[in-house]
Amino acid sequence: MLTQTLPQRTALDLGLDGLVFGCDYNPEQWSRETWVEDVALMREAGVNLVAINIFGWSHVEPEPGRFRFDDLDTVIELLHEAGIGVNLGTGTSSPPPWLTTRHPEVLPVAADGTTRWPGGRQAYCPSSPVFRERALDLVRATAERYGSHPALKLWHVSNELGCHNALCYCDESALAFRAWLEARHGTVDALNDAWGTAFWSQRYSSFTEVLPPRATLSFVNPAQTIDFHRFSSDALLEHYRAEAEVIRLASAVPITTNFMVAAHIRNQDYWTWAGDMAVIANDHYLDHRLERPEVELSFAADTTRGLAGGAPWILMEHSTGAVNWQPRNLTKAPGEMLRNTASHVARGADGICFFQWRASVKGTEKFHSALLPHAGTSSRTWRDSVELGALAGRLGELRGSRVVADVALVFSWENWWAADLEAHPTADFSYIEQVHRLYGALWELGVTVDVVAPGASLDGYALVVVPSLYLVRDEHAAVVDEFVAAGGSALVTFFSGVVDETDAVRVGGYPGAFRDLLGVRVDEFSPLPVGGRVEISGGPVGATGSLWSEPVELVGAEAVLGYASGTLAGRPAVTRNAHGRGLGWYVSTELDAATLRHVVARAVDEAGVAPRSEVAGRAGVEVVRRVGDQHEWVFVLNHSDDVVVHEFSGYDLVSEQHVSGPVELAAGGSHIIRQDRKAS
Amino acid sequence: MLTQTLPQRTALDLGLDGLVFGCDYNPEQWSRETWVEDVALMREAGVNLVAINIFGWSHVEPEPGRFRFDDLDTVIELLHEAGIGVNLGTGTSSPPPWLTTRHPEVLPVAADGTTRWPGGRQAYCPSSPVFRERALDLVRATAERYGSHPALKLWHVSNELGCHNALCYCDESALAFRAWLEARHGTVDALNDAWGTAFWSQRYSSFTEVLPPRATLSFVNPAQTIDFHRFSSDALLEHYRAEAEVIRLASAVPITTNFMVAAHIRNQDYWTWAGDMAVIANDHYLDHRLERPEVELSFAADTTRGLAGGAPWILMEHSTGAVNWQPRNLTKAPGEMLRNTASHVARGADGICFFQWRASVKGTEKFHSALLPHAGTSSRTWRDSVELGALAGRLGELRGSRVVADVALVFSWENWWAADLEAHPTADFSYIEQVHRLYGALWELGVTVDVVAPGASLDGYALVVVPSLYLVRDEHAAVVDEFVAAGGSALVTFFSGVVDETDAVRVGGYPGAFRDLLGVRVDEFSPLPVGGRVEISGGPVGATGSLWSEPVELVGAEAVLGYASGTLAGRPAVTRNAHGRGLGWYVSTELDAATLRHVVARAVDEAGVAPRSEVAGRAGVEVVRRVGDQHEWVFVLNHSDDVVVHEFSGYDLVSEQHVSGPVELAAGGSHIIRQDRKAS
Amino acid sequence: MLTQTLPQRTALDLGLDGLVFGCDYNPEQWSRETWVEDVALMREAGVNLVAINIFGWSHVEPEPGRFRFDDLDTVIELLHEAGIGVNLGTGTSSPPPWLTTRHPEVLPVAADGTTRWPGGRQAYCPSSPVFRERALDLVRATAERYGSHPALKLWHVSNELGCHNALCYCDESALAFRAWLEARHGTVDALNDAWGTAFWSQRYSSFTEVLPPRATLSFVNPAQTIDFHRFSSDALLEHYRAEAEVIRLASAVPITTNFMVAAHIRNQDYWTWAGDMAVIANDHYLDHRLERPEVELSFAADTTRGLAGGAPWILMEHSTGAVNWQPRNLTKAPGEMLRNTASHVARGADGICFFQWRASVKGTEKFHSALLPHAGTSSRTWRDSVELGALAGRLGELRGSRVVADVALVFSWENWWAADLEAHPTADFSYIEQVHRLYGALWELGVTVDVVAPGASLDGYALVVVPSLYLVRDEHAAVVDEFVAAGGSALVTFFSGVVDETDAVRVGGYPGAFRDLLGVRVDEFSPLPVGGRVEISGGPVGATGSLWSEPVELVGAEAVLGYASGTLAGRPAVTRNAHGRGLGWYVSTELDAATLRHVVARAVDEAGVAPRSEVAGRAGVEVVRRVGDQHEWVFVLNHSDDVVVHEFSGYDLVSEQHVSGPVELAAGGSHIIRQDRKAS
Repeated sequence: MLTQTLPQRTALDLGLDGLVFGCDYNPEQWSRETWVEDVALMREAGVNLVAINIFGWSHVEPEPGRFRFDDLDTVIELLHEAGIGVNLGTGTSSPPPWLTTRHPEVLPVAADGTTRWPGGRQAYCPSSPVFRERALDLVRATAERYGSHPALKLWHVSNELGCHNALCYCDESALAFRAWLEARHGTVDALNDAWGTAFWSQRYSSFTEVLPPRATLSFVNPAQTIDFHRFSSDALLEHYRAEAEVIRLASAVPITTNFMVAAHIRNQDYWTWAGDMAVIANDHYLDHRLERPEVELSFAADTTRGLAGGAPWILMEHSTGAVNWQPRNLTKAPGEMLRNTASHVARGADGICFFQWRASVKGTEKFHSALLPHAGTSSRTWRDSVELGALAGRLGELRGSRVVADVALVFSWENWWAADLEAHPTADFSYIEQVHRLYGALWELGVTVDVVAPGASLDGYALVVVPSLYLVRDEHAAVVDEFVAAGGSALVTFFSGVVDETDAVRVGGYPGAFRDLLGVRVDEFSPLPVGGRVEISGGPVGATGSLWSEPVELVGAEAVLGYASGTLAGRPAVTRNAHGRGLGWYVSTELDAATLRHVVARAVDEAGVAPRSEVAGRAGVEVVRRVGDQHEWVFVLNHSDDVVVHEFSGYDLVSEQHVSGPVELAAGGSHIIRQDRKAS
Repeated sequence: MLTQTLPQRTALDLGLDGLVFGCDYNPEQWSRETWVEDVALMREAGVNLVAINIFGWSHVEPEPGRFRFDDLDTVIELLHEAGIGVNLGTGTSSPPPWLTTRHPEVLPVAADGTTRWPGGRQAYCPSSPVFRERALDLVRATAERYGSHPALKLWHVSNELGCHNALCYCDESALAFRAWLEARHGTVDALNDAWGTAFWSQRYSSFTEVLPPRATLSFVNPAQTIDFHRFSSDALLEHYRAEAEVIRLASAVPITTNFMVAAHIRNQDYWTWAGDMAVIANDHYLDHRLERPEVELSFAADTTRGLAGGAPWILMEHSTGAVNWQPRNLTKAPGEMLRNTASHVARGADGICFFQWRASVKGTEKFHSALLPHAGTSSRTWRDSVELGALAGRLGELRGSRVVADVALVFSWENWWAADLEAHPTADFSYIEQVHRLYGALWELGVTVDVVAPGASLDGYALVVVPSLYLVRDEHAAVVDEFVAAGGSALVTFFSGVVDETDAVRVGGYPGAFRDLLGVRVDEFSPLPVGGRVEISGGPVGATGSLWSEPVELVGAEAVLGYASGTLAGRPAVTRNAHGRGLGWYVSTELDAATLRHVVARAVDEAGVAPRSEVAGRAGVEVVRRVGDQHEWVFVLNHSDDVVVHEFSGYDLVSEQHVSGPVELAAGGSHIIRQDRKAS
Repeated sequence: MLTQTLPQRTALDLGLDGLVFGCDYNPEQWSRETWVEDVALMREAGVNLVAINIFGWSHVEPEPGRFRFDDLDTVIELLHEAGIGVNLGTGTSSPPPWLTTRHPEVLPVAADGTTRWPGGRQAYCPSSPVFRERALDLVRATAERYGSHPALKLWHVSNELGCHNALCYCDESALAFRAWLEARHGTVDALNDAWGTAFWSQRYSSFTEVLPPRATLSFVNPAQTIDFHRFSSDALLEHYRAEAEVIRLASAVPITTNFMVAAHIRNQDYWTWAGDMAVIANDHYLDHRLERPEVELSFAADTTRGLAGGAPWILMEHSTGAVNWQPRNLTKAPGEMLRNTASHVARGADGICFFQWRASVKGTEKFHSALLPHAGTSSRTWRDSVELGALAGRLGELRGSRVVADVALVFSWENWWAADLEAHPTADFSYIEQVHRLYGALWELGVTVDVVAPGASLDGYALVVVPSLYLVRDEHAAVVDEFVAAGGSALVTFFSGVVDETDAVRVGGYPGAFRDLLGVRVDEFSPLPVGGRVEISGGPVGATGSLWSEPVELVGAEAVLGYASGTLAGRPAVTRNAHGRGLGWYVSTELDAATLRHVVARAVDEAGVAPRSEVAGRAGVEVVRRVGDQHEWVFVLNHSDDVVVHEFSGYDLVSEQHVSGPVELAAGGSHIIRQDRKAS
């Protein structure tokens, strides 16, 4: 993440009517008769873009060097005749058994040195030269055959790159890691300095001695681990670039791959990837392991829009109902698929695709829902799919419109790797949880948020929220400082600013890089025991902090809330500092949700942010606006179990009715209301 | 499990007085003086069959090819002189260190590729040619020496085959797996089709590319895993057959091995093994990790009788008290050893043996209880052992009698492997738990059950219970369908009929193979979150479902109970369908125990099954009948902490008294009452 | 642990003023400018001994055979000029990357056969010949250079030997293990007998067949495991001896290494190590995973004094605040660092050192507290450090004084290895927990305890406490028996005396070796289920037992408390036996804390032990006495949250005031009161 400069984008026109409405399709699992039936049903459902050949390698190249494209030819023709665009996979996402049998050195290796075998997917080392060579041969053949086909709308490189195999510890990876380190650090002395190898007698005398952070008897060097994450993200990006380069020689069609912005996927630093994508595409699934899956969905969608630099993007995969890979795969309640879809569109998606078209009957994903379930067209899912396809057509009018936000939230994959490392003050700390807590407070307040990279320009925002940014470069911290000095507001939470990009602590007191901005100084962290709570005074009744506390010393700031129990009783817990022409807020503990909302609301208010939602603060009601040249579209999504009354007027694209005045929005219901654009 | 046809059996006559009453004995752990003392005490306890040489390999063949049988000669003579029969182990259950040192390729390999080493037991790959050859050399020498010895009553091949080493992932296993697959599937195209390798680019171009389901980065191909289970069960059975074949060349004495029908052992499909056994023998230990160990004991005993085709069988191992391998090894309360023993006999055992005679003082099992504990003959255990031996003598009169049941329960090891696989609707599902729940409801109702294989003939039963039979062959499902069409009743529970033997989903709606029989159709599964409950109407007050729910659509069936909360409120939860001349019941959720009993009782009643227990429904009182030519024996076993009054009349073989009219059965007490056979 | 004879020691005079007050220092992490600042600040804090070169290998020998001592020369001169003594590390605790790159066979191997890699610390096999050779080369060069330097006060061999790498399962370890076994057992027959290899066909025909207890499919041979622990402890001790031998050729300065007597470190049998140390040094950190960390601290300190044979010892490492390696690293409350320090001194420490001087800014331990924290000298920690240094100077007057105890507690690392093995009656049993429970009862009663090795002379004690001494040699059990016969008292708890040193059960009834002494006999163990409780009668109201119970049979003893529920109701639970001229107490269950204290108090009283604490029994107040020739020093440490009033008179070295009569001791406060020595 050496640069945060994202390209300026406009909406990508794939030449399709309405929003992109599509799906993954795996024709190799079905008969030719079924293909014909499927294409007819796709038309019925309004599908206009179909991703194929995602896992095609072993079908298209059944033996080394022997390609058979006949099936793919037929499927593409069938789609083309039906007026459906093709999103063509390069097919390299999982190597065929013949490759790993002949070249077992392609297989990935875990941190303990044990091999991971075929039988699932992505069984390859991202740094394997043999894999790379073979994959590019396949891509070349495929691009040459279909690169100019009129049905082809988009190239889909590989699939969910790094979902499983991001971190490989094999000897090939070690070689690639050393080359990457030499390019990054230049000399072994510089490496020794950056990694602090004076500690525990780890000084290297040569790059050849360096290894991936394989399993050790004790803790692993943290800087080594962070660099290994950077390398691993880069290694996969390099693979993407290699495929894209081969494609470009034979095809002018735009190229992308599907990201996985999600709570459980963290090995790719997508800020560094985004610039290489013709359009930003994301896969997202509701995660029922989380307390509030719909809030995480919103965060992922806003982050995806951030990766797109604010431009529209495509939801490349989500699900009609249950997935198959969570411990308990809950189905969606009536209205929930529509609500999820609308939330993505509200936050900038100009395309909605599903995994997958027809539910598999064999293999690991057979219990993953699909547009066309095992039960066939006589099913709730199919009826909902057809309705949604129709809506997608109507929503074509908002293509290219934008989401406008006054608040930015800084989010960093690099910090995710660093902040959650072992041997930290408390193993209970989770960066993504802290991000979700801050984001959730804003969500509840009805404040729309742009998610930005560390160091991104904050021009045009009133407030920036910085949750637990443990690792931050000096120049990125300076952007926040200068933003506040110039009149902005920043709200920073505990365990921020602690280390630089080499994981070296900033001495002189925490929160290091943000000490001046915040006007506070802390001389030790004081995490709380399991279940430990500390009372907080000055805010809502019953306010508490958990997880973390700090003996905050005021160096210019004023106390807003205070610790009221424990050894820190009487000390400030939340502070406010006038810095230049702006304000720096600091939260030194994990506040309970209501108190956090209280603090965030105050920072929002003092920053002059007007909530854009007329039902702000109503629990579980999501309100977001997309703004076009002529119109605005207000998305009102009721995630609660209660009827909600609201005052919007306009034309509801969901019910296809004009609404006005107090309107009852059913539990679980959704409105997408077109209004004339307000004077700005 | 290609055929369910079990041989017709009669009781095996080993030429012993009374029931078989015996034990494992490991004389190699003791001095010659102790052998003499032991044989005298065995006579005192009434022991008539002793299993020896179970772990004899390293003693009998201390170096490659050098056999020393002198100790075994002496022990066999001592037993023979005392009139005690010998159950002779082949001694191959654990290879000696000299073998694995010389041939480390014999050692088993785990799914992650790491070796499992000597130091425990069963440290061999079931497919190892070197192991096989060496083991058969030992068996040959042993069979030639003792095959005609008059003391020899039974051959005991190996020991608890597959208890630890059932699944080996080494290269030798890979070779054997490929040969097995080629025999099963014929061509690699057939294999590709059966395994659905079109999914995730897994298509094989040759059998040589196939591997055991070793550790992957993501989920493993489920059909590959199921076939690997089938192969692994067959590989061990093949080993059994190889030993038996060698024995038969030198000995006419019957041959068997000890099964492990238990809640925590599942890698052998004993339905396919049973036909090879001269007599069915089982090892069973109370499992205190379960909520109701005594119900699982009953289920295991009934299943063992099922494996014996209804004929008597031998309990080859159980314990006088605590075992040593559970997390907490609870001892048995006063009366509990008798009660456990009686329950096995009630359910068809004509022999009761223990592990082991004398408690070891060294090694891993030294804290496993024995007939003769560390404390010696001055101990409760010894006194109980002697009493039990005397009872075993008295119980000789019921040898060969049978258990009669009107209800069959379909149980499938193959389905156990398939239904519990990863990437299913909920990881909280456990097949064996569902089986235990259904069986437990019948147990509480006092209904005696025959456990049968899928596809077994249901002639003579009034009701068949089919818990969660996820994987079922078409022809096996047809047996149930035809049974109901002809007037029988079937009660099927959720997640049944879903896939065929290749794990391919039956499309058109769940429960697939049983849709017509049950008159329902389901278009998606709806598992519940952890701790989630759904209210159930139409049955007992407070009825709930957990774990699972389904939007059941009636296609001919009527609703019996309904969902009363959640998004399925108003939908049927339990249904009843008139199918042909019979009834098909469907239970679409995990009902609480009382409601499940309520539903099962109704199905039992409507099927015309008269509970054979006069104290049916009394919590914790087990009543079972064995029926002979002249007499019946009623087993009344009070597992509860309360005195129970019952009305049986007859002669109690336990108390050696005639009983009549209302009799008080003490908490924990047991009666075995001989009655004249009722006119049938 | 073949002999328990510890050398008679007197206090070691390192020629320093006051107590030893010092720290680890890692100058290789800092610039030369910082060294100068550090030495000046060390003087300010009163530091008089600094440990350096602990992890120096890769700095001092950056390439094979090339030594650079220039930095070390400078640092030693700076310290010497400031009058600060040097505790010189041999630097061998973690090998440099060049060594493991050139000799990967040096790397340790886990039980499953996977390698453990560099990146942490201690990445070497203790039995590696290459590692040994290279390490001794380094030691030789270092000893020759600095062996006679006037600043050098102590040699610090390696560091926390065995903290991570104690148990290595590689082939080199296998070779060394075999040699050790041959030396111990002589013949393979003797080995077979000792390990009970008649069980499970494990008989070895040659030592070459023996392996470390690598991962198996089932339980591992317990005697093999115990011998492997003995071997592993000896292998590290052998390494210590090899380094010490090399040092002695070049230096007359005393030699030691830092032990880790702690709840989570158990792989070194320090009873066998102690005799090789010029002074006993221990590292101790509060362990917040325990319920009462301060009690464990006391136990560790008393054990360390036991290792020193009662002589003063050095606390080589503890922390000013939080550590970095526990799940939650809690900081210390105000007064807690002083209280912890005082507790160590009270229990015999004549030196208090810290890890470390200046908090690292890089590497794994950067969040470990230090005397000089990241925040610098403007911090609570620094102020406390300076105060403590001043106190350490004042405490110089008690150097060489002793702690006197009337009660001994037998503690055995060997038993820790054995008693906690798998396949025991209950996996919930933890030896160290039982030790802590017994020790905690005495701590609460204000009774000072000497921790002694099994077999240690009990002369001079009134009572010996023997918690759960499962494995005990005959001759060591005899020492307790003779002690009681001669008039002493012994309190023994359940699961004691069960096996001999080969893990062979003593037959005839438990508790085996202590049966006669205690006058009881038990014929089976009866562990309780999870959460199971049994009521106890005859003691405090509401008394319960958990974890364990036994059907105790009185054979001469009388019942003191009884079981009052469950199947053992009416049986004795705690007994008292007159044996010779003394008393043997037996506790057959895990009593709740209050009831255990009640029983221990009675045993203490009847043994005639007068609690040496005037505030005995006051919750959380620790009172210990050190006795010198002229004076006594009473340590009164208030661990509670309440003010405590006490009656001590004398001069308080903490407050530097005379105190007399009732004095209020603040919550968390500490007194160290000098008094004239009482007539004894």
